[in-house]
Amino acid sequence: MSDNVDRGLLVINTGDGKGKSTAAFGMLLRAWGHGLRVSVIQFIKNENDLRGEQKAARRLGIEWSVCGSGFVHPHSASERAAAHARAGWRQAQEIIAGQSCDLLVLDEFTYPLNFGWVNSGEALEWLDAHRPPGMHIVVTGRAAPTEWVEYADLVTEMNVVKHPYKSGAPAQMGIEF
Amino acid sequence: MSDNVDRGLLVINTGDGKGKSTAAFGMLLRAWGHGLRVSVIQFIKNENDLRGEQKAARRLGIEWSVCGSGFVHPHSASERAAAHARAGWRQAQEIIAGQSCDLLVLDEFTYPLNFGWVNSGEALEWLDAHRPPGMHIVVTGRAAPTEWVEYADLVTEMNVVKHPYKSGAPAQMGIEF
Repeated sequence: MSDNVDRGLLVINTGDGKGKSTAAFGMLLRAWGHGLRVSVIQFIKNENDLRGEQKAARRLGIEWSVCGSGFVHPHSASERAAAHARAGWRQAQEIIAGQSCDLLVLDEFTYPLNFGWVNSGEALEWLDAHRPPGMHIVVTGRAAPTEWVEYADLVTEMNVVKHPYKSGAPAQMGIEF
Repeated sequence: MSDNVDRGLLVINTGDGKGKSTAAFGMLLRAWGHGLRVSVIQFIKNENDLRGEQKAARRLGIEWSVCGSGFVHPHSASERAAAHARAGWRQAQEIIAGQSCDLLVLDEFTYPLNFGWVNSGEALEWLDAHRPPGMHIVVTGRAAPTEWVEYADLVTEMNVVKHPYKSGAPAQMGIEF
């Protein structure tokens, strides 16, 4: 743990708008700029779908794990997707218990919690027991579970005011992925 | 302009919550990861107050300009703060007209617009006339002017659900700055 981290925050970026993961990556950049140790575990996203943030992380030497199978809906969820998510949570537990970073992003972690792939109450209980005092943990994703929102230190909801997809524009590299 | 940018978006991150600037820096990281040319002009922030994102930008070789005098309220605004902001907008105009980047962040630009330091209508008219088709422009700050929201392609509102300052925790390096 870096000396200049006073108290680790549990941060949640939720809501239906853009910017949840993007703001988490902005925190990552900011923390990395300060020389803090940062890690990311991406749930849901497919490892074969190399995004701008992953390319950047490679160039910066940031530890980045993808533990997803692409976006899946709960009803069509394969056991493989659930197993990926559980492996991601085990990896997060190792990082947290080992205090091996100062800021850990659990990107789109709300989905495995909401789909029941990782038990929400048990995960929160484990986190409360093992969270190092100086580590920031950032959780992103829609519909953060109520118990997590209640436990968190900083919760922001990102809401759509206007979205270009609605007017037929395609997703833009560098903005959306 | 990079070949792989299809259509530049005007993106606005507004609202009273955290994550407006942070999401803009996340987009910056993502675009940089894709090899796009990125620039930032920070309005309001003081250049002597070196933040994590600026330290990161220095390490990444990203062009980063600070055109502010620290946070000021409109009624206490010095002519110096207004002049700083106008210089920032002139610099933005040069970058835009010169098409010298693929993603330009105008961080906290809503304040100079709302304070009247930069004329909002004139700036928007200028932007509409000069915006290169492939350049993304990201504007952050509270209370984005209505005409800008109407003109923008993607608008997200970041709202506070829970904030640690309310429970007395100080600002955290790596998270807040």
